[in-house]
Amino acid sequence: MIRKLLLGLAGLAVVTGAVFASSHAAAPHKGAIKARQSVMQLRAHYLGQLGAMAKEETPYDAEAAANAAANLALVNTLDQSMMWPKGSDNASVENTRALPAIWTDGGIGAKANTFNAAVEAMKAAAGSDLAALRAAIGPLGKACGACHEDYRQSNR
Amino acid sequence: MIRKLLLGLAGLAVVTGAVFASSHAAAPHKGAIKARQSVMQLRAHYLGQLGAMAKEETPYDAEAAANAAANLALVNTLDQSMMWPKGSDNASVENTRALPAIWTDGGIGAKANTFNAAVEAMKAAAGSDLAALRAAIGPLGKACGACHEDYRQSNR
Repeated sequence: MIRKLLLGLAGLAVVTGAVFASSHAAAPHKGAIKARQSVMQLRAHYLGQLGAMAKEETPYDAEAAANAAANLALVNTLDQSMMWPKGSDNASVENTRALPAIWTDGGIGAKANTFNAAVEAMKAAAGSDLAALRAAIGPLGKACGACHEDYRQSNR
Repeated sequence: MIRKLLLGLAGLAVVTGAVFASSHAAAPHKGAIKARQSVMQLRAHYLGQLGAMAKEETPYDAEAAANAAANLALVNTLDQSMMWPKGSDNASVENTRALPAIWTDGGIGAKANTFNAAVEAMKAAAGSDLAALRAAIGPLGKACGACHEDYRQSNR
């Protein structure tokens, strides 16, 4: 573990000097990891509002649904370029479930595109009616899951 | 503590049925609290990039500075209306430093306005040059601190 960590640190120092400087040597990439987890958390927040309506835990409200979907889309416009530095995977550092494959298998771009498209479809649909919201939430949940399955360490 | 918690829960059930439903009874407002903490974390992320340049820990880069400031402003446009439900203060629930005064003393609106203005000023200044960025970061840090001082439990 120590060896793995030291190897990770050696790589970091070369690749990400700028990020490293502000994230403090004691917990490499801590800030970047917290930031990307915050992006995920905000997605969960807005998606949760849509999910609660889809499941009729809360009554469907066109304005609230459109607003939640618009905010989900807004989260996608936040700059994440400093949030996924090389060496911030779960084999290199603590407190992340991000698998190394994110940086190596070349598949994440396509999955991100699918997710973005599903979010845009939800944004277009959510304010119409409950049926439209429900139709859009399936592909959206699937897009979330597809990425988590390949790129996030399972809790089990 | 238990009594305080139960009183808090009784209030919650009346005021925030919708939020409560999706945040699960075992940890009231957990989702809302995580969401607002995520907003703060993202502010720290983008502000950190500006702060690193101000302190010359990283070289000033006009494009990167403008981008960080634009993203800081973008975070302010995220809908927080479901993130601060009544009864989600640190006297009522766990895992938050949000003081009850947020909901009671009537002062948070003015402080939020000051913060928003400081963010907009930074957005206008950051891409000009290092001196402009530095001039904008003082009022911005002060606006952050003013709110934290009155409305966030000190760690001490």
